[in-house]
Amino acid sequence: MANHETVRENAPLRTLTPGERFCGWYLLKSAQTATTSGGKPYLSFRLSDNSGELPAKLWDYAGPITSLDAGQAVWASGRVDSYQNQPQLVADNLRLADGTDEIDLSRLVPTAPRDAQRMLDYVEQTLRSLADADYRGVCLTLLERHREDFARLPGAMLLHHAFLHGLLMHTATMMHQADFFARLYSDIVDRDLLLAAAFLHDIGKLTEFSTSPLGLVSDYSKEGQLLGHLFLGAEEAGQTARELGVPEEKRLLLQHLIVSHHGKAEFGAIEPPKCAEAELLAQIDMIDSRMEMFRTTYLDTPAGEFSRQRVWGLDNQYIYRPAADDPA
Amino acid sequence: MANHETVRENAPLRTLTPGERFCGWYLLKSAQTATTSGGKPYLSFRLSDNSGELPAKLWDYAGPITSLDAGQAVWASGRVDSYQNQPQLVADNLRLADGTDEIDLSRLVPTAPRDAQRMLDYVEQTLRSLADADYRGVCLTLLERHREDFARLPGAMLLHHAFLHGLLMHTATMMHQADFFARLYSDIVDRDLLLAAAFLHDIGKLTEFSTSPLGLVSDYSKEGQLLGHLFLGAEEAGQTARELGVPEEKRLLLQHLIVSHHGKAEFGAIEPPKCAEAELLAQIDMIDSRMEMFRTTYLDTPAGEFSRQRVWGLDNQYIYRPAADDPA
Amino acid sequence: MANHETVRENAPLRTLTPGERFCGWYLLKSAQTATTSGGKPYLSFRLSDNSGELPAKLWDYAGPITSLDAGQAVWASGRVDSYQNQPQLVADNLRLADGTDEIDLSRLVPTAPRDAQRMLDYVEQTLRSLADADYRGVCLTLLERHREDFARLPGAMLLHHAFLHGLLMHTATMMHQADFFARLYSDIVDRDLLLAAAFLHDIGKLTEFSTSPLGLVSDYSKEGQLLGHLFLGAEEAGQTARELGVPEEKRLLLQHLIVSHHGKAEFGAIEPPKCAEAELLAQIDMIDSRMEMFRTTYLDTPAGEFSRQRVWGLDNQYIYRPAADDPA
Amino acid sequence: MANHETVRENAPLRTLTPGERFCGWYLLKSAQTATTSGGKPYLSFRLSDNSGELPAKLWDYAGPITSLDAGQAVWASGRVDSYQNQPQLVADNLRLADGTDEIDLSRLVPTAPRDAQRMLDYVEQTLRSLADADYRGVCLTLLERHREDFARLPGAMLLHHAFLHGLLMHTATMMHQADFFARLYSDIVDRDLLLAAAFLHDIGKLTEFSTSPLGLVSDYSKEGQLLGHLFLGAEEAGQTARELGVPEEKRLLLQHLIVSHHGKAEFGAIEPPKCAEAELLAQIDMIDSRMEMFRTTYLDTPAGEFSRQRVWGLDNQYIYRPAADDPA
Amino acid sequence: MANHETVRENAPLRTLTPGERFCGWYLLKSAQTATTSGGKPYLSFRLSDNSGELPAKLWDYAGPITSLDAGQAVWASGRVDSYQNQPQLVADNLRLADGTDEIDLSRLVPTAPRDAQRMLDYVEQTLRSLADADYRGVCLTLLERHREDFARLPGAMLLHHAFLHGLLMHTATMMHQADFFARLYSDIVDRDLLLAAAFLHDIGKLTEFSTSPLGLVSDYSKEGQLLGHLFLGAEEAGQTARELGVPEEKRLLLQHLIVSHHGKAEFGAIEPPKCAEAELLAQIDMIDSRMEMFRTTYLDTPAGEFSRQRVWGLDNQYIYRPAADDPA
Amino acid sequence: MANHETVRENAPLRTLTPGERFCGWYLLKSAQTATTSGGKPYLSFRLSDNSGELPAKLWDYAGPITSLDAGQAVWASGRVDSYQNQPQLVADNLRLADGTDEIDLSRLVPTAPRDAQRMLDYVEQTLRSLADADYRGVCLTLLERHREDFARLPGAMLLHHAFLHGLLMHTATMMHQADFFARLYSDIVDRDLLLAAAFLHDIGKLTEFSTSPLGLVSDYSKEGQLLGHLFLGAEEAGQTARELGVPEEKRLLLQHLIVSHHGKAEFGAIEPPKCAEAELLAQIDMIDSRMEMFRTTYLDTPAGEFSRQRVWGLDNQYIYRPAADDPA
Repeated sequence: MANHETVRENAPLRTLTPGERFCGWYLLKSAQTATTSGGKPYLSFRLSDNSGELPAKLWDYAGPITSLDAGQAVWASGRVDSYQNQPQLVADNLRLADGTDEIDLSRLVPTAPRDAQRMLDYVEQTLRSLADADYRGVCLTLLERHREDFARLPGAMLLHHAFLHGLLMHTATMMHQADFFARLYSDIVDRDLLLAAAFLHDIGKLTEFSTSPLGLVSDYSKEGQLLGHLFLGAEEAGQTARELGVPEEKRLLLQHLIVSHHGKAEFGAIEPPKCAEAELLAQIDMIDSRMEMFRTTYLDTPAGEFSRQRVWGLDNQYIYRPAADDPA
Repeated sequence: MANHETVRENAPLRTLTPGERFCGWYLLKSAQTATTSGGKPYLSFRLSDNSGELPAKLWDYAGPITSLDAGQAVWASGRVDSYQNQPQLVADNLRLADGTDEIDLSRLVPTAPRDAQRMLDYVEQTLRSLADADYRGVCLTLLERHREDFARLPGAMLLHHAFLHGLLMHTATMMHQADFFARLYSDIVDRDLLLAAAFLHDIGKLTEFSTSPLGLVSDYSKEGQLLGHLFLGAEEAGQTARELGVPEEKRLLLQHLIVSHHGKAEFGAIEPPKCAEAELLAQIDMIDSRMEMFRTTYLDTPAGEFSRQRVWGLDNQYIYRPAADDPA
Repeated sequence: MANHETVRENAPLRTLTPGERFCGWYLLKSAQTATTSGGKPYLSFRLSDNSGELPAKLWDYAGPITSLDAGQAVWASGRVDSYQNQPQLVADNLRLADGTDEIDLSRLVPTAPRDAQRMLDYVEQTLRSLADADYRGVCLTLLERHREDFARLPGAMLLHHAFLHGLLMHTATMMHQADFFARLYSDIVDRDLLLAAAFLHDIGKLTEFSTSPLGLVSDYSKEGQLLGHLFLGAEEAGQTARELGVPEEKRLLLQHLIVSHHGKAEFGAIEPPKCAEAELLAQIDMIDSRMEMFRTTYLDTPAGEFSRQRVWGLDNQYIYRPAADDPA
Repeated sequence: MANHETVRENAPLRTLTPGERFCGWYLLKSAQTATTSGGKPYLSFRLSDNSGELPAKLWDYAGPITSLDAGQAVWASGRVDSYQNQPQLVADNLRLADGTDEIDLSRLVPTAPRDAQRMLDYVEQTLRSLADADYRGVCLTLLERHREDFARLPGAMLLHHAFLHGLLMHTATMMHQADFFARLYSDIVDRDLLLAAAFLHDIGKLTEFSTSPLGLVSDYSKEGQLLGHLFLGAEEAGQTARELGVPEEKRLLLQHLIVSHHGKAEFGAIEPPKCAEAELLAQIDMIDSRMEMFRTTYLDTPAGEFSRQRVWGLDNQYIYRPAADDPA
Repeated sequence: MANHETVRENAPLRTLTPGERFCGWYLLKSAQTATTSGGKPYLSFRLSDNSGELPAKLWDYAGPITSLDAGQAVWASGRVDSYQNQPQLVADNLRLADGTDEIDLSRLVPTAPRDAQRMLDYVEQTLRSLADADYRGVCLTLLERHREDFARLPGAMLLHHAFLHGLLMHTATMMHQADFFARLYSDIVDRDLLLAAAFLHDIGKLTEFSTSPLGLVSDYSKEGQLLGHLFLGAEEAGQTARELGVPEEKRLLLQHLIVSHHGKAEFGAIEPPKCAEAELLAQIDMIDSRMEMFRTTYLDTPAGEFSRQRVWGLDNQYIYRPAADDPA
Repeated sequence: MANHETVRENAPLRTLTPGERFCGWYLLKSAQTATTSGGKPYLSFRLSDNSGELPAKLWDYAGPITSLDAGQAVWASGRVDSYQNQPQLVADNLRLADGTDEIDLSRLVPTAPRDAQRMLDYVEQTLRSLADADYRGVCLTLLERHREDFARLPGAMLLHHAFLHGLLMHTATMMHQADFFARLYSDIVDRDLLLAAAFLHDIGKLTEFSTSPLGLVSDYSKEGQLLGHLFLGAEEAGQTARELGVPEEKRLLLQHLIVSHHGKAEFGAIEPPKCAEAELLAQIDMIDSRMEMFRTTYLDTPAGEFSRQRVWGLDNQYIYRPAADDPA
């Protein structure tokens, strides 16, 4: 067939279909060496880019690439096959990137759908707008200390916002909501406290996560596993507040909002929310996390249909994407 | 003491203190006839107005007022005593209102802290703004059918919004939030669907509640107990949509949002939320209910202190009201 | 071996053993196209009949049959192999039925172990025996409207009564139990209400399920997933009762029994059972569902032994089939 | 008033109304000595008969009756008063029965609504009808050993069948159900096993309960609290089966049905039911317990109304007693 | 009666019986002003000493003592009465202690049954025996900083060790157990880590509790309620470790053991125990807490009997105190 | 490569690496006959010894070894391959041991890390040291009856102590702890009762387990599944106590400690622990089970790292093995 003649270069993985040929730079997600029943070695691996990922095989391959190279960029070429009704790549070539290769990394790893610099500006300007100098001081001190990591880190390992700038996008969206609710319930909510805590609530994730060479979260750190990001964030915010001479009442409130932002002990909260701002913070964290899971589920679900799989993070339900309105 | 000479007329109950004398119109919350160890009959009862309620005694009283008169307006006079460190009224006179009495009912029953007509106008104008004629039609039809009850009914029997116009206030606030979130997540949320369902979500409460003579919810109706307001609301909205010829997809979505707005089966949801609008509706219902419980808890809690009692509706926690900021 | 010479035609799949040859009509349960490590296409599929199902392979096969043909009748021939100690079919021929084939469908799909017409007659006669004209009217109206589907549909997708006429068999058995309990507890149970609701309780499944070409349940419908069969059944029964002028008390009771027949919110009940008939209906639904799961588990379990697998629907336990009594 | 002149003798407590005078024999349910604020001693106690119970006071009383006399029959006279809208007795005389008093005990304690001898005959005849000599032997041996207690004991301390012959009535009704289900599911159920276990299932309660002088359950025994009636019954049935030379398979099945008849570990089952007979036994125990709770709830609930209190044993719900049908 | 003539002075409250007269110093546990139905003021209060507590009344009393004086020592005299089968004090005199009174406070408040100084010596010597200078340094630093409070504070407000030196006794007993288990499981347990954390585990309670004038815990502090003693203890231990230059691995382990010592999230653990020492620490904390509840329950339970009340902290069970062995 | 020339004989499986050749005696853990896509039969099996287990293949193999031979010793030879980054054996020879082979069984099955005879001596001497002749009598009677099985059996099928003498090791360690706690809490704990029950608590496992030819637990027995080891142990201990004329109080206590030693109904306890000894027994059973799981988890976890897998028996957590201290 004619399309066998053409080779698509650097094509998004999601767009490849059985019968096509491909070549280009991708992320080596994982790799396993194996042997066929006939005793021949081969490599079973997965490639990913910012559009998705695909399984792949390289027959008669004895190295040097192994599972230890996971997380690196590779050059691969071959054809697209089909296995169990899903596309599978059969490579004929595979090598690691070296220092001389010029690779557009933004193509390889998933990235937030919004502009990172604009989000960072919004966060900083909003913090500078806080009327309360104590809350403002703690936030700006921590923003200065962690600016680069804060702007780059994903929001989670798997469930939601698992892309570059994910933590920033999640934080900025929550601050937007915090501002709305502080106005809506202005009789019982302190805007400065709620906005400061919205900024700080996941700051402990900067310590909780280990990141891969290309910037994605690859694992939890030892501190993250032994203490958790709620503890880590509240400890650092508390220490900073003490150094800045913040009054005890305000320091305690900031720490309380951080340690309670998972809402219930069963979801990891150290204490349940005990004031209106703490309650709101836990609720808007929940809302933005779940809306992001709806967003990514919809990407794989045609309008008017249910998701093909149950979605673990959404109470393990099949999710329905409503049919788009007909124009008229 | 001098203040024994004065009689405070129609004083808010919350303001009465031991040693004062009182007279005026109040709501008879409950009443029980009893007999002292000496064999003399008396009446043990509770009076309420829109500021709170107090226990009361009328010694040597054999009627005609009994427990059957609960929910009516009464004229009472007497002195304020103290029992277990709390004020208690000792009446010397008590009679039911008759047709000739002119009573300001708004003083007797708790009423929403915002203007009912303005809230109703907001709801109606927002519904008229819906771009989708189907959703708009269902909502306006039901608003016309139930306008008076909808505007007057409390939002619940006990937990939150348990005052006149409470359902309207709760609905209007949720529509305000719905509008905000429809913009924030416009890529995955249909504004018309979310706003329509925010209006409709508690419409079944009009059938679920029985109301007392003065308009407060006194009990659940038989239909309310046997079927629940989620079922009742979705049944009526579905029937109306069929009569108006609304396409099946839209009717199902409206019904789904109504039956899922309690979020989880354990909280009474018939199905869990399965699309982004359903998820948001359940979340903002939760937020507004809990914020209202914080608001009323704060009314009885000095700034910088914890609530005297655990608050059942807020996960049975002691609630903290943050200290107000010092001026400067 | 001699048995290689013989070809068993239309043999029940459960009776095939490794080494035999087979041919005949079967149901194509599922199919997946795939490629061997050597690059050759093949079809991995499952055949079923009313005795069970088996995995199968067709090597060197590139179509035209694909996963889209699942649910259709096919002609297949080949030999019986063994894989992981279980029989596996290796086909040499496979084609779809066309209009000219004469196929005994009753052999292909699992069917209730009792006569459908006799069960339907029992249901109808019992409904005609109801003394209460209101309950009788609602039931007979719905029986007329749905007679064909009601008599044919399985009782569930997977767990129990997942065969043709399964819903009918489940309903008839429950009505038999309802009759017994109405006599046993005649002082507190209204026979007509209990029998009517036993007939109606799963009527919403007619809307909840999507069925495959040959009549089995292949999926849940959109309405089923968004509203659930308890809601759908109670909505339709309520609408019918209103049209027939049934008094409100009776309509509410019918609807209450339908919406509560799963017993507890965690099992999907919209309200818990609140009268004796509702309680009984939920209990006998549970009993018949579980007895049917014991029946099918016993089919695969030798007497005196435990089931090979945990049975998910029976609290995920290993089930014991007691040893048969010795004759004497 | 005229009715003050009349004294009602041995009137059922449920029928007494404020203003009447009473005298007669009742059961002293409980008693507490106390002192008024004026320093005078009095007795606060409760009287009961088979119609219900009432609170009572005896002013200026210093003994000899104290809390230690609870559970005995007493002669009391006085007038009926009202306290918190409920009748309360004010006695002027109270003494313990002595050997010379002739008292109709059946009036004092609640008794099963069905004839004890007929129920006992049914149980015995049914056991004699068992085809399996092993199961029959175990049952008849235990019936002989415990006949008197078995026929007299209540079925529970509080929740259901808490009256004389309650255990017998509960057992007989369950055997009736067992017989029905053994026929209905004859393909998977062994009638003899199910009936034998229905008879034996609560036999451990004979050891678990302590009884009061007049035959009601007053407490759990030490054995009952340390081991529970499931263990005790299965231990005794197992020991008896061993002595009679019952084959191990049958002994194990009998014991399994006894230890699993509470269905789930959270309800006290030692193992969950693992064969069809065990499942059925647990289900019909549940049904009869709950139907009895409906029966007693209905006694205090007018037709067409909800129970005044939540019913703890029925999932803590308000229970609805359906409106009786209109005659015509 | 003769015993009316005698007045028992400073008698333990547990030993007073109705009919006796009393006088002496006691702790005012709580107080409420009230008015009789005749309009006369009185004081309803509770007195306690280290043997228990009793309700009391002082008729015709208008002050100056009120609820605000709770927690102070008072002189009281009067007679012992009986109310609801329990002793009740009727006072004729009541006054607050002033500076000139010489009161043996150890009689007034419950105190640990073991010698405080010996326990403190054991703790300090054991800490000095730690081989690891880092762990030893953190512990001795915190012991120095908090020695007085640590030695004096109760272990809890209500459930267990709610007496002076309770925290010390609980800590010392746990260190004794830690030493035993470190030897028993020496292949997987670091003795120094386990002993250090046993000392530190409740150090956050020094901040979590508010104490009454006489040293008992009267309430949770604001920090205690907003952050909890696990967070507070781990924050302070972590800060101290950083100041002493303890290696990060050891600091993290100490903090992990503190934040996980409640075992599960549902019991308040911030993270579950993830190493053997953390697991052991959580287990021995549980053991010592529960053994102490058994000890105090046994104080009120005769041998061979069950506790009169369910014990909330012991899974809400009735507790059995085994019969003492017969001597021989 | 040179190491292809060498054949390692009876090498511990855990030490084999891809590329080596092996031969020796191993345990056949499981086996499955299968057919390749080319139609050739082969055997897929697992070998184990006391160091671990490995998957294996024997190509072109049609018998006689099948799944029925699982649990027997086999002679195998071949080479070590790699599959999915894990070692996999490819055998060229496989035969069952016969009577003439001399095999060191201790190499084939996992065995307790401590000397069995010394542990057995400790248990027996401790039991002989009991002051109470009744408890001592029951224990020694049961030790005599089951000595061989008791000393040999594993402690569980999978989770912990799943090696020869595992039950003995678990029991001896618990008796050691019991002795410690009986001294620590001597005011409320009866040493003889606690030690006797520590010995008896798992005695029912001798009946609950089925064992394989080489002594490991291969399955649960019918009695084990239908009644559970708590019931079986308490039944046998009770029967023995009755035969020895042990007073009822002591028999009940022994039985109570056995039936409650899983702590909570959800963990299988028949009754919750109701006296101090029962509480301690449940706690130390938990401690020793979990410490053993930590021990085996650490075997596969490098110091300073987390376990590669979640550990199911330890609340499904990743477990951390602390970094060893630096020498210095």
